[in-house]
Amino acid sequence: MKYKLTLEYDGTSFYGWQKQKDKYTVQGVIEECLEKIYGTPVKLVGQGRIDRGAHALAQTAHFVAPSKLLPVNIKKALNSLLPSEVRIIEVEEVDEGFHARYSAISRTYLYLVTPEEVPVFLRNYIFHYPYTLDVEKMKEASRYLLGEHDFTSFSQAGEERGKIRKILKLEIEEREKLILPWCEYPIKNVRFEIEANAFLRKMVRNIVGTLLEVGRGKILVSRVAEILEGKDRTLAGPAVPAHALFLLRVNY
Amino acid sequence: MKYKLTLEYDGTSFYGWQKQKDKYTVQGVIEECLEKIYGTPVKLVGQGRIDRGAHALAQTAHFVAPSKLLPVNIKKALNSLLPSEVRIIEVEEVDEGFHARYSAISRTYLYLVTPEEVPVFLRNYIFHYPYTLDVEKMKEASRYLLGEHDFTSFSQAGEERGKIRKILKLEIEEREKLILPWCEYPIKNVRFEIEANAFLRKMVRNIVGTLLEVGRGKILVSRVAEILEGKDRTLAGPAVPAHALFLLRVNY
Repeated sequence: MKYKLTLEYDGTSFYGWQKQKDKYTVQGVIEECLEKIYGTPVKLVGQGRIDRGAHALAQTAHFVAPSKLLPVNIKKALNSLLPSEVRIIEVEEVDEGFHARYSAISRTYLYLVTPEEVPVFLRNYIFHYPYTLDVEKMKEASRYLLGEHDFTSFSQAGEERGKIRKILKLEIEEREKLILPWCEYPIKNVRFEIEANAFLRKMVRNIVGTLLEVGRGKILVSRVAEILEGKDRTLAGPAVPAHALFLLRVNY
Repeated sequence: MKYKLTLEYDGTSFYGWQKQKDKYTVQGVIEECLEKIYGTPVKLVGQGRIDRGAHALAQTAHFVAPSKLLPVNIKKALNSLLPSEVRIIEVEEVDEGFHARYSAISRTYLYLVTPEEVPVFLRNYIFHYPYTLDVEKMKEASRYLLGEHDFTSFSQAGEERGKIRKILKLEIEEREKLILPWCEYPIKNVRFEIEANAFLRKMVRNIVGTLLEVGRGKILVSRVAEILEGKDRTLAGPAVPAHALFLLRVNY
């Protein structure tokens, strides 16, 4: 029996998604709970890594179960064992052919920026960037990034695999109110929503960091095309911090 | 020069308000910042302690400054040095006679309870109590507590000072929407707002814990009067956890 999990988590106190020895990771705690439920180690396969400090509103993963349990009971058992910063939203039985990572068509991330002072209770979810932003210029610059490109310039150092990805959507919206699934708060913000077939490590944060430099007039709109074509990771703007990054959904 | 501070903080990662050796406390970090600003140790006097894990929307404190600075500049300097989980809301110059603790007339606390599953991003701010509550019964029981009484039964073990306090207000309200200063979320909740001249340690949490037992029918309404009169701290219901407790304001 193969099961697909959909889960949300607050990444603040985790050392990222991916299991690592002696680190408190999301994959790690879920695997520990699965072992308690089934009495034997169970390997969990996520749709992909998520940066340390970033959050997930709908991370997906699958596992092959050593015995049969109703999805609703797996959900209940996991939620009763998991720490309160991770919640299983849904458990579904899936076909043997399903793979959390390889069956996924695309991923959508959200990034939140505000020029205003952030209330203490929202400090882990929005990036305070105290500059006036020209949103039209950022939108213009973002058009260069749409479609299939080699995103080496927006990748993380040391990553050796292929760097070609396809950005399907890149929306930038200015809002007077912050709207999150658990929160509405009147604070000016700029919201980036980016969908791609897959992402390189730190790719969203490098793209947002570069677009913010366009927005505040530090670099020209056309420079973004040059950065992309340069295929050199030293060209892009600095990565924005992970705490304002959310995995919104994974599309199958 | 004497200054009054009004500040908000998220108590999740603090070891409470009150300074303690080798512990991360709110008073401790603010005093460290004041020492950096003035170049000499400065003692901060709070209006009172706040339980470890509880939050403050408007904690107050005062300090005597070794040199003159504009209140607006003290605020800026402190906020640039403080960790993001504490924000100074206001700095005011006050008369020499002002005392954060002794000049305060009353304190108001908020406590939040929900029978529903709590989203991960709100887990540190509301208490999940999975029972149907009879709010009318809780209101009835709360009337015994109004006014001046010996609150020994609702105090913390080991506290030796006088136990007489005066509760000025005790409101219990059922809501369909959680409303916090930084958050609105559609989740059923019961909201306790308690004002007293001063509070004993754990007093709010012991009162709420006892009223919840009335609400779910575990103890009778009239039992609350007996608990109060018994002046015995083993009589009250269990204290509710600190993470859903907020200091709302201090009245001068």
